[in-house]
Amino acid sequence: MEQLQNLKTLLAETADLSHAAAVLEWDQETHMPAGGAGARGHQLATLRRLAHERFTAPEVGDLLDRLAGAFDDRPEEDPDRALVRVTQRDRARATLLPSEWVSAFAEATSAAREAWKAARAADDFAAFAPHLRRIVELNIEKADRLRPLVAEERGTGYAPAKADARYDALLDEFEPGASTASVTAAFDELRAGLVPLVEEVAARPAPDDSFLHRDFPEDAQWTLGLEVARAFGYDMNRGRQDRSAHPFSTSFAISDVRITTRLDPHFFSPAFFGTLHETGHALYEQGIAESLDRTPLADGASLGMHESQSRLWENLVGRSLSFWEHWMPRAQEALPALSGVDAGAMYRAVNVVRPSLIRVEADELTYHLHVLLRFEIERRLLSGALDVADVPDAWNESMRSYLGIVPPSNADGCLQDIHWSLGAIGYFPTYTLGTLMSVQLFDAARRDTPALDDALAAGDYAPLLAWLRERIHRHGRSLTTPDLLRRATGQDLDAGPWLEYARGKYA
Amino acid sequence: MEQLQNLKTLLAETADLSHAAAVLEWDQETHMPAGGAGARGHQLATLRRLAHERFTAPEVGDLLDRLAGAFDDRPEEDPDRALVRVTQRDRARATLLPSEWVSAFAEATSAAREAWKAARAADDFAAFAPHLRRIVELNIEKADRLRPLVAEERGTGYAPAKADARYDALLDEFEPGASTASVTAAFDELRAGLVPLVEEVAARPAPDDSFLHRDFPEDAQWTLGLEVARAFGYDMNRGRQDRSAHPFSTSFAISDVRITTRLDPHFFSPAFFGTLHETGHALYEQGIAESLDRTPLADGASLGMHESQSRLWENLVGRSLSFWEHWMPRAQEALPALSGVDAGAMYRAVNVVRPSLIRVEADELTYHLHVLLRFEIERRLLSGALDVADVPDAWNESMRSYLGIVPPSNADGCLQDIHWSLGAIGYFPTYTLGTLMSVQLFDAARRDTPALDDALAAGDYAPLLAWLRERIHRHGRSLTTPDLLRRATGQDLDAGPWLEYARGKYA
Repeated sequence: MEQLQNLKTLLAETADLSHAAAVLEWDQETHMPAGGAGARGHQLATLRRLAHERFTAPEVGDLLDRLAGAFDDRPEEDPDRALVRVTQRDRARATLLPSEWVSAFAEATSAAREAWKAARAADDFAAFAPHLRRIVELNIEKADRLRPLVAEERGTGYAPAKADARYDALLDEFEPGASTASVTAAFDELRAGLVPLVEEVAARPAPDDSFLHRDFPEDAQWTLGLEVARAFGYDMNRGRQDRSAHPFSTSFAISDVRITTRLDPHFFSPAFFGTLHETGHALYEQGIAESLDRTPLADGASLGMHESQSRLWENLVGRSLSFWEHWMPRAQEALPALSGVDAGAMYRAVNVVRPSLIRVEADELTYHLHVLLRFEIERRLLSGALDVADVPDAWNESMRSYLGIVPPSNADGCLQDIHWSLGAIGYFPTYTLGTLMSVQLFDAARRDTPALDDALAAGDYAPLLAWLRERIHRHGRSLTTPDLLRRATGQDLDAGPWLEYARGKYA
Repeated sequence: MEQLQNLKTLLAETADLSHAAAVLEWDQETHMPAGGAGARGHQLATLRRLAHERFTAPEVGDLLDRLAGAFDDRPEEDPDRALVRVTQRDRARATLLPSEWVSAFAEATSAAREAWKAARAADDFAAFAPHLRRIVELNIEKADRLRPLVAEERGTGYAPAKADARYDALLDEFEPGASTASVTAAFDELRAGLVPLVEEVAARPAPDDSFLHRDFPEDAQWTLGLEVARAFGYDMNRGRQDRSAHPFSTSFAISDVRITTRLDPHFFSPAFFGTLHETGHALYEQGIAESLDRTPLADGASLGMHESQSRLWENLVGRSLSFWEHWMPRAQEALPALSGVDAGAMYRAVNVVRPSLIRVEADELTYHLHVLLRFEIERRLLSGALDVADVPDAWNESMRSYLGIVPPSNADGCLQDIHWSLGAIGYFPTYTLGTLMSVQLFDAARRDTPALDDALAAGDYAPLLAWLRERIHRHGRSLTTPDLLRRATGQDLDAGPWLEYARGKYA
């Protein structure tokens, strides 16, 4: 037990450093004056490097060796057993990355974040290209260092020539167990179901959604979004919302989980659904068992599972008819420009299916095509088949081919997402995986909770949150995503339920 | 030169950790949800402890030993020579404090900050008392560890029984070279000049300042304050302002220096003069030579010198007649409640001398009595003559004796300042020392810059800022406060100029 305590002490220090870095990153996105970017890059590089050094220090390895198997008589989700297992897994990866790589990556991404903001505002891809090139290089280095381990764990053999070995290695960090092949299979199944459905919807006259583009005072949008977030269960004593160029959620502790949003005074959807989406992420982080705080277990099981939470609250709750039947009077009170719009019209408007430029504002159906486009571009960047300079053309070509529209600018095209500037490559597919899981989980929650639909219709989100807390949130990383999904739903990951939901709603 | 570079690399890492901690503290004061306090305490403790461990590591000592005397043929203010000298000084102190003390102090002050906010809001001294007791204990431990070194450096001998040895040891960190005896002497001289002056002013009818208590929309106060700050030269590309319970300034880099203010919709002075005051601090930090960034030299020479800058801009500029002759039209435009108040009336109102409860809102004359009160209470806390439980009584008794008024609540009494909750004891006298220096520096700037008064009257602050940048700011800690003062003014610290200024303005 003393060894376990020593391990926890060392891990708590690493967690403190990582959380401090997260505070600095949050500040960079929300408040930092532009001039502070250079210094912030140094600070983040130092914090990330020290966190990495302390985590990969021999003491941690020695303690893990001594504790290996010590708790194998306990259940899989036992926090001590899980702590050893998850820490071993993380550390096996971390030790393959030298400190120099870690600080270079932190420095490069800090600079890239600022460059991305400026490049997007100025619609200047050339200004962002060198940063993206550096990030691709660093990701290739990371993938090449990690892929033998990933291949060995999966028993697929070390295949340096395999085109997607790099993508597999990166995806594995965000979505343990997923592979380029399994993602491709899911997309294939999705596409087969989606294409006829989108065609069917397109053949019908589109509902009116022009009223979503009226004048909505920013303050009132802010208040309304947070009111719904609170109703969902977001604990503002342990959270807050700020503005940023790209909405995100972040956690500095189970007791300090924050979200951001962006406001468009002439468009209802970005702030409102952005807030609901990020609230879904925040509810997950706030729901992790407090006993896991300051350990590697105090995080979502995977990015896909995280996204299942955000998409569940944003779409399955927030874009449902019963949601708008409950909230429409309040929305009209806050935003008089919505007067005269009834709940049914609102429901139809926020679910209009229409090819559009911006992923985070896309409808539920075409959303997956945006993800697929990014997945394919990233694969080609990693394999070397696509040069960074050719990203805008590749992007626009895919937009034309998948959605039939071409962005009028790179700001509305390949510069729209923050993710690459954060260094995240191999991350986008988790958005689609999470969306598929969201329906599997929601179906299970309704099956387990007979009165759930009535509660939701009455604006009572406590039963849904309680089910998610019990089945998903509290476990943190103590169970893997496949395990959590199986225990909660009795199923493995499956595109079927989502397709059924989509056909039921849109056909 | 390689050793120097190695030293700078190690010190840069320490600076990054300290600046990261400063970001976390800033966030705690400005944005952090209340629930985050516990975790924040852990994070700060880890960062402060790691910074201390890296700074006191043997490598730093070895490099300092090898570099000792290496640059003694260069001038005193040479950055490399100063780096070695200042780092040696800081490190000699840091090595006397164990890591456990550093993390305990960080944890205690993080908790105390939250407790102070709540206690002040609830006027509940008893809730803050255990935190203050812990902070006094930790400061006594620190003083007892440092005082042999301080006594040795001063050749005053190690005198454990000397009543003020602890106070000397703590004051030495904030104001190198100052001592309890020298501070007492300055206060004695000040009091001798102040008492008849305050009596003389009190014998005259007080000017009308009731219009400072009209309704002033917070947004407009905010905008006006920042407009003046910008006019002074505060570079908002490298700074920003936020709200906090107690105004402060903080630096995360020469390129990221922030201030805070608090707003009272029914009182003009706190936000306006608070912003001017903190801008003075921020101008100092923004003016440090960029080449000193990420070294121990990138800071003010002492807290007294820092305060000389804030008091100079707040009082010598911001409370002057010519300032109001220039700004009154703009202030009336921003705050229509000031219509009909002419510059002369405004000047008299913002300089009303009247015993008052809150130090940061006190007039220039009675201000020093607030400082003296705190100085005396702190001395008694450190020597053991005063118990924490008796602080409210001691405070109120001193207020009665020095200012003839007794706070109606502890919130307006001994709970008004944030400083003790930050762990700062031995700090308040630097406010008076800085005020004295502000006049010495301002006199010298006027002497060196014949057109200075005309420029200030025209709202052109560039010549004054240029003089301060050249003589004070750019040097950072490369020169000590006594050296800077002597080089800039030809004088040592002297209460005479301030008394002359005060008699000229108020007699």
